[in-house]
Amino acid sequence: MAGTGACPPGGRRGQWCREPGRAVTVQTSAGVRERLAGHRERFDALFAEYFTAVGGQALPRSSFVPEALDLVRDMSLRGGKRLRVALVHEAARLVTDEAVAGADAAAISIELLQTHGLIHDDIIDDSPVRRGAPSVYYAYQERFPERPQTALGLAVLAGDLAAFLSVRVLLDAPVPAPLRQAMAAVHASAAADTVIGQFLDLERDFGPVPGREALDTVSDYKTARYSLLAPLRLGLLAAGGDPDAHGEELARYARLVGVSGQMRDDYLDLFGDAALIGKPAGSDLRSGRRSYAVCAVLAAASGGERELVQEALDAPGCPPETVARVQDIARRHGVDEHLRAEIRRGAESASAVAASWRGRWRDDAVEFFERLPLWGAQRAL
Amino acid sequence: MAGTGACPPGGRRGQWCREPGRAVTVQTSAGVRERLAGHRERFDALFAEYFTAVGGQALPRSSFVPEALDLVRDMSLRGGKRLRVALVHEAARLVTDEAVAGADAAAISIELLQTHGLIHDDIIDDSPVRRGAPSVYYAYQERFPERPQTALGLAVLAGDLAAFLSVRVLLDAPVPAPLRQAMAAVHASAAADTVIGQFLDLERDFGPVPGREALDTVSDYKTARYSLLAPLRLGLLAAGGDPDAHGEELARYARLVGVSGQMRDDYLDLFGDAALIGKPAGSDLRSGRRSYAVCAVLAAASGGERELVQEALDAPGCPPETVARVQDIARRHGVDEHLRAEIRRGAESASAVAASWRGRWRDDAVEFFERLPLWGAQRAL
Repeated sequence: MAGTGACPPGGRRGQWCREPGRAVTVQTSAGVRERLAGHRERFDALFAEYFTAVGGQALPRSSFVPEALDLVRDMSLRGGKRLRVALVHEAARLVTDEAVAGADAAAISIELLQTHGLIHDDIIDDSPVRRGAPSVYYAYQERFPERPQTALGLAVLAGDLAAFLSVRVLLDAPVPAPLRQAMAAVHASAAADTVIGQFLDLERDFGPVPGREALDTVSDYKTARYSLLAPLRLGLLAAGGDPDAHGEELARYARLVGVSGQMRDDYLDLFGDAALIGKPAGSDLRSGRRSYAVCAVLAAASGGERELVQEALDAPGCPPETVARVQDIARRHGVDEHLRAEIRRGAESASAVAASWRGRWRDDAVEFFERLPLWGAQRAL
Repeated sequence: MAGTGACPPGGRRGQWCREPGRAVTVQTSAGVRERLAGHRERFDALFAEYFTAVGGQALPRSSFVPEALDLVRDMSLRGGKRLRVALVHEAARLVTDEAVAGADAAAISIELLQTHGLIHDDIIDDSPVRRGAPSVYYAYQERFPERPQTALGLAVLAGDLAAFLSVRVLLDAPVPAPLRQAMAAVHASAAADTVIGQFLDLERDFGPVPGREALDTVSDYKTARYSLLAPLRLGLLAAGGDPDAHGEELARYARLVGVSGQMRDDYLDLFGDAALIGKPAGSDLRSGRRSYAVCAVLAAASGGERELVQEALDAPGCPPETVARVQDIARRHGVDEHLRAEIRRGAESASAVAASWRGRWRDDAVEFFERLPLWGAQRAL
């Protein structure tokens, strides 16, 4: 069938499709940063090859379709750390240091799911910029300045396209059908859970101020399940492991890392150095977003102080002076210190979960999973 | 894993999930309408059960998530003729008159994909009404009259949720993994092709007036591949048939029926009786949409007549008098008659393709596929 199938019919299959990629050579002693960089470098080349293959397929004559594919491609290739990709490969390395068929397709799939999420997120949040360039939504608005409805429609469709390509690349993976099916099932669950997480995330800013458990549930559904748990499960599956046999501890690890990472992002948003985080502090507060940091200040403050924070939340776009006053209030109540301690505690708990995998899985990869949360927590704290 | 998996873990599986449904009892001599009605009735009960099972699963505490599931459910259960469902089951009946495991999951999946498409389409077209009630987008606008951005975001997410549930129900189908995988691959290709079709559909209204072949390509990608070809392939797969062995003729049948059906809809939109079609004639013209009928008038007319049609297209919302003048011009050039002949010709060609299946497949079901396009062409012509 014609279309944008991941594997083009006939002989011209990209390397990502035909054969398992070589495993990245990493020193056991290499730090988390170096290992991430190794996976990222190899993956970025592969991902570009994937898009070349998709674009080279028989498609009906059109200018809109290649334009959409280009926007999906550009957004995808402007990827950041590629943490999800590293997790897929390191999870496979828990089982074997051989190259693993299917791991590349899993990595491409999970990054396309991420692209889908970003494109639709930027519609939901009306965000002009993503990964240092115009969001797909705004790219279309620039292209059709007189037709905002067309721009919106095309952006919705570009996100849908990324979602279905993300499923298709897994179903085309060069592995036996039961494995493809198992990987696709992990993907479909993670995708649905992520959408649920996005509903929870929008809901978080309505009604009573959410407590810690509710915030953790948002982080778990919105981020941990597809960015941490799914890559872990996909990598293990591809390598012949049985993630179901360890489902609970994998989910626990993913949730702890996800919550700790989200808390760090929220901490940095309120207390971070504008030069380091690349934007003025307080963007959550200014957009009325009930982040971990914002909720912690609300919980700690009372009386006039609490009112000030609540007013800042209710009136989007508060000035830098208000942000500074909220920071002062937070520091006076030790909210910054408390958050840093919580971030560390979560990371240490996650690391301890990974440490318990020694003996069962390969030390080299276990070490990566032990170090990852601590490295994440230390960054910029 | 918690979430909205199609099959709830533990004992409480819906009938749609646990066992193949009984085949609908249809008389060989029953007309297309009766057979469609039989499939629809059985399916609608099953679909409602499916949503009860999804809603009954462990989900995080939330009001947004059940609300979204309700909207997806209500839109899904307001289904029309359920042609896709009938096609899945009749395609299975080409191979066997036994009940077929997996056909129900395939039918649910393809209807959820339809729901996904409708929800996002109504954002793209800014449509207030769908299937006789508010579109999901407008339902959210009513719910959040002061927050249009929240309403838009929730509608985008509701569409995404339907898409991922649609994949998941196939991957949870109670059939062997290779079959599940094959069905999921059909689904993923159809889904991606449909998105491509929607891009083509938007593009149709820009640039030079499209010719017949370009219009047929839009109908093929936008409609035929997921509404006709995918159900055919899914039904055959579920029944143990090999759709790939007959890929070209299945695609030809689907394309002919899809094109003929789209042409009929476009014909009725311009020439239909307002009372019969449930809306004033000329909605395509008024929205600047280059339907088969509109393109045919543009191709037939010249000089001042063509200018009038073009001006009506360029100025959305033209009055009934302009629509009446365009109808006159069309009739004067025999466009209405020509379209009717083309619709009939396409339906007859499709019927002939199905007739060639006699001997290879079961007569009872072949007859359904022979009659279906003719029945469709006759309706309201």
